[in-house]
Amino acid sequence: MEPPQRAVLRVICQDRPGLVADVAGLLFRLGVNILHADEHIDGELNTFFQRLEFTPPPGLDDGGRAELSRRIGEACEGWKMRWSLDWDRPLRRMAVLVSKRGHCALDLLARQREGELPCEIPFVLSNHPDLAEEVERRGYRFLHEPIVDGDKASQERRIRERLAAERISLVVLARYMQILSPAFVDEWSERVINIHHSFLPAFAGADPYRQAFRRGVKLIGATSHYVTRDLDEGPIVSQDVVRVGHRDTVRDLERKGQDLERVVLAHAVRCHLTDRVITYGNKTVVFE
Amino acid sequence: MEPPQRAVLRVICQDRPGLVADVAGLLFRLGVNILHADEHIDGELNTFFQRLEFTPPPGLDDGGRAELSRRIGEACEGWKMRWSLDWDRPLRRMAVLVSKRGHCALDLLARQREGELPCEIPFVLSNHPDLAEEVERRGYRFLHEPIVDGDKASQERRIRERLAAERISLVVLARYMQILSPAFVDEWSERVINIHHSFLPAFAGADPYRQAFRRGVKLIGATSHYVTRDLDEGPIVSQDVVRVGHRDTVRDLERKGQDLERVVLAHAVRCHLTDRVITYGNKTVVFE
Amino acid sequence: MEPPQRAVLRVICQDRPGLVADVAGLLFRLGVNILHADEHIDGELNTFFQRLEFTPPPGLDDGGRAELSRRIGEACEGWKMRWSLDWDRPLRRMAVLVSKRGHCALDLLARQREGELPCEIPFVLSNHPDLAEEVERRGYRFLHEPIVDGDKASQERRIRERLAAERISLVVLARYMQILSPAFVDEWSERVINIHHSFLPAFAGADPYRQAFRRGVKLIGATSHYVTRDLDEGPIVSQDVVRVGHRDTVRDLERKGQDLERVVLAHAVRCHLTDRVITYGNKTVVFE
Amino acid sequence: MEPPQRAVLRVICQDRPGLVADVAGLLFRLGVNILHADEHIDGELNTFFQRLEFTPPPGLDDGGRAELSRRIGEACEGWKMRWSLDWDRPLRRMAVLVSKRGHCALDLLARQREGELPCEIPFVLSNHPDLAEEVERRGYRFLHEPIVDGDKASQERRIRERLAAERISLVVLARYMQILSPAFVDEWSERVINIHHSFLPAFAGADPYRQAFRRGVKLIGATSHYVTRDLDEGPIVSQDVVRVGHRDTVRDLERKGQDLERVVLAHAVRCHLTDRVITYGNKTVVFE
Repeated sequence: MEPPQRAVLRVICQDRPGLVADVAGLLFRLGVNILHADEHIDGELNTFFQRLEFTPPPGLDDGGRAELSRRIGEACEGWKMRWSLDWDRPLRRMAVLVSKRGHCALDLLARQREGELPCEIPFVLSNHPDLAEEVERRGYRFLHEPIVDGDKASQERRIRERLAAERISLVVLARYMQILSPAFVDEWSERVINIHHSFLPAFAGADPYRQAFRRGVKLIGATSHYVTRDLDEGPIVSQDVVRVGHRDTVRDLERKGQDLERVVLAHAVRCHLTDRVITYGNKTVVFE
Repeated sequence: MEPPQRAVLRVICQDRPGLVADVAGLLFRLGVNILHADEHIDGELNTFFQRLEFTPPPGLDDGGRAELSRRIGEACEGWKMRWSLDWDRPLRRMAVLVSKRGHCALDLLARQREGELPCEIPFVLSNHPDLAEEVERRGYRFLHEPIVDGDKASQERRIRERLAAERISLVVLARYMQILSPAFVDEWSERVINIHHSFLPAFAGADPYRQAFRRGVKLIGATSHYVTRDLDEGPIVSQDVVRVGHRDTVRDLERKGQDLERVVLAHAVRCHLTDRVITYGNKTVVFE
Repeated sequence: MEPPQRAVLRVICQDRPGLVADVAGLLFRLGVNILHADEHIDGELNTFFQRLEFTPPPGLDDGGRAELSRRIGEACEGWKMRWSLDWDRPLRRMAVLVSKRGHCALDLLARQREGELPCEIPFVLSNHPDLAEEVERRGYRFLHEPIVDGDKASQERRIRERLAAERISLVVLARYMQILSPAFVDEWSERVINIHHSFLPAFAGADPYRQAFRRGVKLIGATSHYVTRDLDEGPIVSQDVVRVGHRDTVRDLERKGQDLERVVLAHAVRCHLTDRVITYGNKTVVFE
Repeated sequence: MEPPQRAVLRVICQDRPGLVADVAGLLFRLGVNILHADEHIDGELNTFFQRLEFTPPPGLDDGGRAELSRRIGEACEGWKMRWSLDWDRPLRRMAVLVSKRGHCALDLLARQREGELPCEIPFVLSNHPDLAEEVERRGYRFLHEPIVDGDKASQERRIRERLAAERISLVVLARYMQILSPAFVDEWSERVINIHHSFLPAFAGADPYRQAFRRGVKLIGATSHYVTRDLDEGPIVSQDVVRVGHRDTVRDLERKGQDLERVVLAHAVRCHLTDRVITYGNKTVVFE
């Protein structure tokens, strides 16, 4: 038998007394069962954030679910909230974009297979052919979309058509070494997650491990963030670091960093797929 | 002018639909403003935990506050909850017990002075006289309660009388090397915090740094927990570790460990004083 | 062209003045170029440890290499040292043993392919057939050696024959859920690395994530160690931890723990394969 | 009885075969007993680093010690090394400079008293009077050197006179919020250690906790480095980080960061005082 469906309501609005009671009361009257509720108030910005995970009343059919969604949406609009309501079925479809280095992309495939990432992965797409065999050997589809004659615009257009055709809802840049155009970024706002191989904002830009080596830092990091028009400046979802020393060469930094990248990216993707992230301004609230 | 008072309501009960709405509705009708709300449901135990931090209606006097507390308590009883309601004023009174090694005790004094720990510290008490000067030099009272002729029972009785006389509500064992009697522990249940200088349950008992050295572990830890009748078995509030290597002697482990002990104990005390901990069985929920 | 060969000399002996000069002088007279030298003295045990990584004189043929090894060995014997001399070519052959959970085994395969682990992996062996497809899909050989009718002794005998036939020099238990016999452990002393899914010595034995969950610890760990007759008591090579909280279920602990297990095991295997570990008593010196 | 004296020889030079044997042989012929030896070779720069800790021959008097130093220095010069030889007695004299926030300065005093930092601290000096009582209460001398009428130059001149008069060999900026002049920095090259309250190079400059809060990072850090003419750009000796989340206010970041600052600064100071650091270019080798 199917497990019961779950939904996640996320809201963000100006803070005022009674908000928690209002939302909880609404959900109670709609007959849903709240599983988890997280609130956060940013006192400086006077802003209220909430994430509610709930199961709908037993036996609800598709029509009932639509009606439930409609009534929740109506109430949230009335309360002047920015809101989203996401059901855990059907599974979301995630596209993985990669260039030549496969450690992050292949790691996501392994985690999806093990059930750690609640999504489907219809394809892995690269601007290089190198990873075709590794991806296909694991039973996933590999798409090669090269940049022909330096025509990045048309390559990107083909990618966007693919994303649309395959009904993708999340794009993960798993070491995809191309900068997306503003138009792409705007269309896919808060739905493109990147892994940057440094502890941002340190060592933004190219070749961060070499930068870190030159600066002689004692820790290196990895940062996963939503992609915005400003390169390496998007809202951070997850970060971590690992200790390095004078014995570590640039190659060692890369090797240690790759372990971090995998874990940090997977964590960010998981938080996104389980609807735990709310962005505001250039920051995130992550309800874990 | 005084900052507005705050209160924290913590509840724990069997889970059922509507709980979040019930509590939020009650508080809203009482005119309080919810600042933070945290819930947790332990699905395995079907248990609901909640922490609500709120400000009372403006201008409430002592009588009003008592009435507010009474009505909240009444409702919680009706809902069959285990509950507690704590106001942030007047400040709680915390006693620090220590033996000879002062690093944790003196650190707590420094943090209290810097405003990091919302409490008063009427005295530091030791079974040894060694730390008198260091404590008094910092402007705190030092009490010496030695164990005379091995008569631990009467020493403990004197300590308990002190705690009562000074209206203490939290006892911190900041490297106090005596085992408290079951009667003491029972009377002060969930109000005695200890720091153990290992990553419990590893290296319980005496001389954990030497044990860790002998076992050749690559990390050492510190654990802060509530004291129960079972030594080193009480609910854990905070833990952390630090990396060690073959070059570290037992003395190095102690030195590195002492930094950890200070931070871990201070974190646990702070969580307790800000009413962030709910114990259940042998575990804690810590709403941070 | 081949990269120049490297060798690692590891010695352990009673400490005395002049040891560093003796060894360095010997190597200098033999015309080798020291790349890295690490010493450690355990003052309590009055024991000297050294690891020297060097390149032989240019143009040395197989005979010259044998002669070099002989002269180093002779000198070390004369100095009453326990010693080993290991060349980085030909690559060592490593066997991976696993039961049903493949995350560690498959991770080792990926790292070996990426060049992170200097070894060959002639096969992955399991007492269960489950991982055959995953292993073979990655281009590695899978051997199924089931325990038939509860006859563990004959299954183990078949495994030992395989190891001998394939000239294996390192066995990695990548979540292999069988206890090896004392005879096996003795024969393969310091050449079997296990990953235990807890921060040993905490939660030794079965089902450590469940134990950790019940105890309510705030960090979980993983430990990689050499296998000895005493279960979970062998010399620790690598350990690490990750933070957990009350929201984490046993399943979450497993998921978080698996990331740790992969990294900790790979680290230990890499340290072994690059001859960085010296064991003594129940401990290790790891020259990183 | 006095513990036996120890000395540390640090050398840096172009790498060549036989270096390890040359140095070890020299020390052996001089009759010293090597306690620890650490080497590092930077293959990219072809540079050799070594730290040797040794005890002199028993019964050596002051003249003998001078002669030993002379002969070591002569040999190192002959080998074209940059070198330093430091004895652990008499204790070095360390000055602590601070502005208004005392957490780092007072922590250093506590550690010195506990024997963790092998040095004398003749005074704590501040451009503000605020910490006088706290410092004197702990039994240390407090010097107030204000900047009068904006005349930073003459204040700095007075400080430099103090440092000379008191035979200071290490200056620690324990949250001293003034920028030192190039002349000061040049005179005290590699002998001024600063604590920066961020994970450099992220958030260099003023108010790093506010910067970190605005950027929404998930970890904050602290960095201890030698002071050079380029602000926040000097060679890093020690770094560490701590996890933060959306619930942490700027004030929380400061509080968490202060714990880090104390530990990171103390670690760097200890590494310096035990002669474990070798700087080269803008980086450090730290032999721990």
